[in-house]
Amino acid sequence: MDPYLDILGKRIRARRSELGMSQERLAHEAGLDRSYVGRIERGEHNLTFIALVRLCRALKCDVAALTTSIPAGQQE
Amino acid sequence: MDPYLDILGKRIRARRSELGMSQERLAHEAGLDRSYVGRIERGEHNLTFIALVRLCRALKCDVAALTTSIPAGQQE
Repeated sequence: MDPYLDILGKRIRARRSELGMSQERLAHEAGLDRSYVGRIERGEHNLTFIALVRLCRALKCDVAALTTSIPAGQQE
Repeated sequence: MDPYLDILGKRIRARRSELGMSQERLAHEAGLDRSYVGRIERGEHNLTFIALVRLCRALKCDVAALTTSIPAGQQE
């Protein structure tokens, strides 16, 4: 498992929980399959940039909000 | 062409130019094919998250530095 996919998945799950949103609702709003969202949250899937943008739109945040310090040690 | 891939591609190119890096060198350091990097910079390819992380490592910034306001209107 890639460490950054793992970190990103955890951040997506945390943001979703913060919003009190179910995985079904997030998948629906992002126009993605629920099991696909489950794999992303578990860090098991190397998602595309467009899928990540769609998830962020549904999570009402920008991609930057979920990707600080990815990769580590490169803060701008 | 997806507007966000277009924006991301332009930001990758701007960061690369800022560092005075050629496309060949960026591709080499990111372990990606040069023509693939060219398509990404032109917004023609929906890259994966891991490819984006590898580009950011070579560009010495984190993914957040290139993805503020993507998608628009969702700033955290």
